[in-house]
Amino acid sequence: MNNDTLVNRRITLAARPHGRPAPQDFRLETRPAPVPGDGQVLLRTLYLSLDPYMRNLMDEVGPGYAPSVALGETMVGGTVGRVVQSRNPQFQAGQLVLANAGWQDYSLSDGADLLPLDGMAQPSLALGGLGMPGFTAYVGLLDIGQPRPGETVVVAAATGAVGAVVGQLAKLRGARVVGIAGGADKCRHAVEKLGFDLCLDRHEARLDERLAAACPAGIDIYFENVGGDVLDAVLPLLNIGARVPVCGFIAHYNQASPSTASDRLPKLLATVLQKRIRMQGFIILDHYAERFTDFRKEMAEWVAQGQVRLREDVVDGLEQAPAAFAGLLEGKNFGKLVVRVADE
Amino acid sequence: MNNDTLVNRRITLAARPHGRPAPQDFRLETRPAPVPGDGQVLLRTLYLSLDPYMRNLMDEVGPGYAPSVALGETMVGGTVGRVVQSRNPQFQAGQLVLANAGWQDYSLSDGADLLPLDGMAQPSLALGGLGMPGFTAYVGLLDIGQPRPGETVVVAAATGAVGAVVGQLAKLRGARVVGIAGGADKCRHAVEKLGFDLCLDRHEARLDERLAAACPAGIDIYFENVGGDVLDAVLPLLNIGARVPVCGFIAHYNQASPSTASDRLPKLLATVLQKRIRMQGFIILDHYAERFTDFRKEMAEWVAQGQVRLREDVVDGLEQAPAAFAGLLEGKNFGKLVVRVADE
Repeated sequence: MNNDTLVNRRITLAARPHGRPAPQDFRLETRPAPVPGDGQVLLRTLYLSLDPYMRNLMDEVGPGYAPSVALGETMVGGTVGRVVQSRNPQFQAGQLVLANAGWQDYSLSDGADLLPLDGMAQPSLALGGLGMPGFTAYVGLLDIGQPRPGETVVVAAATGAVGAVVGQLAKLRGARVVGIAGGADKCRHAVEKLGFDLCLDRHEARLDERLAAACPAGIDIYFENVGGDVLDAVLPLLNIGARVPVCGFIAHYNQASPSTASDRLPKLLATVLQKRIRMQGFIILDHYAERFTDFRKEMAEWVAQGQVRLREDVVDGLEQAPAAFAGLLEGKNFGKLVVRVADE
Repeated sequence: MNNDTLVNRRITLAARPHGRPAPQDFRLETRPAPVPGDGQVLLRTLYLSLDPYMRNLMDEVGPGYAPSVALGETMVGGTVGRVVQSRNPQFQAGQLVLANAGWQDYSLSDGADLLPLDGMAQPSLALGGLGMPGFTAYVGLLDIGQPRPGETVVVAAATGAVGAVVGQLAKLRGARVVGIAGGADKCRHAVEKLGFDLCLDRHEARLDERLAAACPAGIDIYFENVGGDVLDAVLPLLNIGARVPVCGFIAHYNQASPSTASDRLPKLLATVLQKRIRMQGFIILDHYAERFTDFRKEMAEWVAQGQVRLREDVVDGLEQAPAAFAGLLEGKNFGKLVVRVADE
């Protein structure tokens, strides 16, 4: 088998970003597509998922739950791909699969990390609401946050891949949902399309006052995915017994050096103690074995019935990935950010 | 009935402390003892408990779970007292009771907040290991921390009223226990008398390095009762899935103004996320209805069998309470701090 005619473009990590990832931190390389060995398949990437966690993998010291990307190596990432050549009896050419091909056109897999997606109407959703981000919302909100009817749930990045699902699941559980998002369009979407009770524009002044007014009965669950100013505004409003699932804090990912702000740790500890807060971090990789089957079944039903609506922000072309990713960390996307690498 | 001959000394809060409580923040007043009305008893205080939480009640804005002490009012506190006059059919003169008489010789009660202690060999223990501090250790370690055999538990203020019980209960559950205490005497006591595996002197240099060496398998439970430098040393050592019951942070209680240290919140959040930490605050008042009966029964057995050893630091004389309390916040006590107000 010979792939002389197949050209693989890949985007490697050329330098470790200092703060915000810059164009020169990435390199687009072109080389022949690899040739599958015995037991392997060759995948054509159709969609590449861009997710905030990737920023952590660009640092020399990684986050611990996954190795850092080495300099010169292909950026990692979840993908939807089509099998173009198969030397693995479990897969046939033409099949659609969920994969981890990273930021490139073609990749090899031995099949162990592939999940067949055949028959899926909109396969890119396997990278969003029906995949890792949706699963993150499901485990974080339902298993850790445990919302009860009538409780107030606050989530930032409210139209993002995770936040949008958090809010909709909280509504399904009978909670009151207050979102925070960047810009009037996103806020309108959160309320009108996603069914949030309220959504506050984080670009407007006095978030703390507006959040207090939006949560007259306090906050029972704060789904932490941004940190920064939002956490500051949330802390004084947390009710006794509130839960804070910690899924990430995008606001800090690009911090190049330790903050020079005054120490906010004592205030956090005092709140945790006085309000009997349960703050719990989770890494979604831990939960696949136990909960992913339940999630896929339930979420597929919710989406099919229109109870959970999923919006994608699709960027065309692998070469756009670095800029789109930098924008993601600043909230420039509107919905789950996906790169369309090739037509289905 | 007339108590003209009974003189009540009481210590009031004369001023709100700025940082460390100073002698002039308190006032010793003398007045006739009160006279019990119908349904009331007059109590003679024998022992007064001094506990770190009292510092929070001295601030104008209290901690929320209990009201601040008003200026000019008697300082609050748990006590062991003897009924000297009773106009309540449920109590007889001469009975020993657990009460909340505060920092004074004589007080009235309608009986609702009294717990009979008759027959108790060492009634002051009802203020320590067999009372609120022991109960705090029990709920925080067993219910929230949930130690498993072989896990590593770290507790600071290791010979204090709460820490000493935390460590001994962790040993009973089969955990490895590393204490932190102020001074060689306390550390020796923690290891030789309380059965801790190791105890580190917080007055010596490089606590972070020594704690890392003392916890080669990392830390599974950190019972947070001090904050400050100890928390900084603990954070990098927390294992995946570690639990952090938050019971207090004495190191911050005397902070008169916000810290000027750099912001440690991002580091904490990163650790909570990456290590999947469950950090949970608790206020022991919440747990009496559900767990106090179990606690009293189990702890009394452990103490009777010598499986939990309780050391008291007894100060003689009500007038010593302000200085003893200031010392408590600096770790000058060695064991549960109790003021002997009158002979049994």
